[in-house]
Amino acid sequence: MSVLVVGSVALDSVETPFGKADEVLGGSGIFFSASASHLTRVQLVGVVGSDYPVDQLAPLAQRGVDLTGVERAEGESFRWRGRYRHDLNSAETLETRLGVFSHFRPKIPEQFRRAPYVFLANIDPRLQLDVLRQVERPKLVACDTMNFWIESRRSDLMELLGHVDALLLNDGEARQLTEQSNLVKAARWIIDRGPRIVIIKKGEHGAFMFTSNSVFFAPAYPLEDVFDPTGAGDAFAGGFMGYLARTGKLDEEHMRRAVVYGSTMGSFAVEQFSIDRLMTIDHETVRARLGEFRRLVAFEEELPA
Amino acid sequence: MSVLVVGSVALDSVETPFGKADEVLGGSGIFFSASASHLTRVQLVGVVGSDYPVDQLAPLAQRGVDLTGVERAEGESFRWRGRYRHDLNSAETLETRLGVFSHFRPKIPEQFRRAPYVFLANIDPRLQLDVLRQVERPKLVACDTMNFWIESRRSDLMELLGHVDALLLNDGEARQLTEQSNLVKAARWIIDRGPRIVIIKKGEHGAFMFTSNSVFFAPAYPLEDVFDPTGAGDAFAGGFMGYLARTGKLDEEHMRRAVVYGSTMGSFAVEQFSIDRLMTIDHETVRARLGEFRRLVAFEEELPA
Repeated sequence: MSVLVVGSVALDSVETPFGKADEVLGGSGIFFSASASHLTRVQLVGVVGSDYPVDQLAPLAQRGVDLTGVERAEGESFRWRGRYRHDLNSAETLETRLGVFSHFRPKIPEQFRRAPYVFLANIDPRLQLDVLRQVERPKLVACDTMNFWIESRRSDLMELLGHVDALLLNDGEARQLTEQSNLVKAARWIIDRGPRIVIIKKGEHGAFMFTSNSVFFAPAYPLEDVFDPTGAGDAFAGGFMGYLARTGKLDEEHMRRAVVYGSTMGSFAVEQFSIDRLMTIDHETVRARLGEFRRLVAFEEELPA
Repeated sequence: MSVLVVGSVALDSVETPFGKADEVLGGSGIFFSASASHLTRVQLVGVVGSDYPVDQLAPLAQRGVDLTGVERAEGESFRWRGRYRHDLNSAETLETRLGVFSHFRPKIPEQFRRAPYVFLANIDPRLQLDVLRQVERPKLVACDTMNFWIESRRSDLMELLGHVDALLLNDGEARQLTEQSNLVKAARWIIDRGPRIVIIKKGEHGAFMFTSNSVFFAPAYPLEDVFDPTGAGDAFAGGFMGYLARTGKLDEEHMRRAVVYGSTMGSFAVEQFSIDRLMTIDHETVRARLGEFRRLVAFEEELPA
């Protein structure tokens, strides 16, 4: 089954201790699509300016990402410029130019409106709500958000929570949203307000998935060289949603595996700039890392009496 | 098989957002012993001052901790006073009074010298080396350390690394010791200098175990109420060493399970002040949490083609 993603399509300029990239493909919609395309068909909705190097999106289209919903508007594309210091844990934003993204009003093409899996990447919760008005009874809706919306659009975000099945956010955002420092309590706070699945991402420290009666944890794969953390969270979401869409199942066991796929795809995203690594890995590479992942957390059940 | 631990026996005064404790049992040797005593016999070597409430150690003795090696010296006992703020991640030390601990020279009683498992808790690496001169061919020697020794006793610490099988330390200490920000590289740096097992503890973010050809990760159990983090690392070490001593096996699978026991015992330690929780849990409570732990990370191998 296919997954619809509504998110940003940007040009990133990134500096890390290991190198520099200028005006490369970026944005939540792009990272999500590159990741999910390894698992299922993807329908991307976003906006680019008249200056966007749309020919660079061709490899995504070749991977089965339907770009019909990427609107081209007059003006500058969304640009982000950031820098990571040595610890790679937090990006320092040097410049954000929203360009055409500031007037983005997602229009879901007719043929995307019945997408069974919908991912609302990190955009204004008013727009996320607007997307939900345009789609027809999806099987699963997941959304992301960020500190900016938690501060400036809290009531819209709260309304949104009543309409989504899953919320993905990082630990800092979870604490900010819920005013609970304990993540177990934060997750329960969110579940009480709508979503039945809460995924709290902790970057290099892995991710929790909470439901009303279970908790699952997947570490981040311990890479020796994290090259550029940009997009890891969206690649995670792409792996998670892509796996669910591929299997069509939503039980606990499939969701756990979906989190493992999320973590695995996130681990590839950070190995190179932009979506470079996500675009070159193949099925065998993914399977090999899933195997390493399994070995990373495996221990035998048998315990001495 | 029994495990010998050489560490501090202290009186802790701790303030957390949830309460206050004054002059309660503390110190690495105490937390380690309380934890490991659930799995095997423990021999504790340390020192207390003439003011120490030794009668409060009776419950440990009843649990099979041999206190013959706890020397009683003239003077004040080691006291630590600390406070945790809301995030509970790092202690703020308000006062440290070493007392008799400042002149501690571990003397390993004759009947402890053949202990097959030896844990050198966080003390001066010169003393840790001195302990190793007193024991006879242990099967496994593990040690802990801290920032203070990494700064002030680096050459002794490096010498020690050549004589231990396992080093347990936290992520900050690993980065400080190795000057590698990446933990995979930090672990390799340490393994190149002696220990064949490196356990990097990340507090609430779990723990890695590295060997030359494997990596294992165990999360910290996600508790809803972390009451007092003091002693979690030593309780972890107690679970790890206690499990290995109990089984007498040192292969990869037993070491993985030992890490899970470590994480489990650490999760109990933080539920109450001092060793209170470690002293009240029983076999069934431990087994139940091990089961929850397993469920926390379990996912099915079967993946769609």
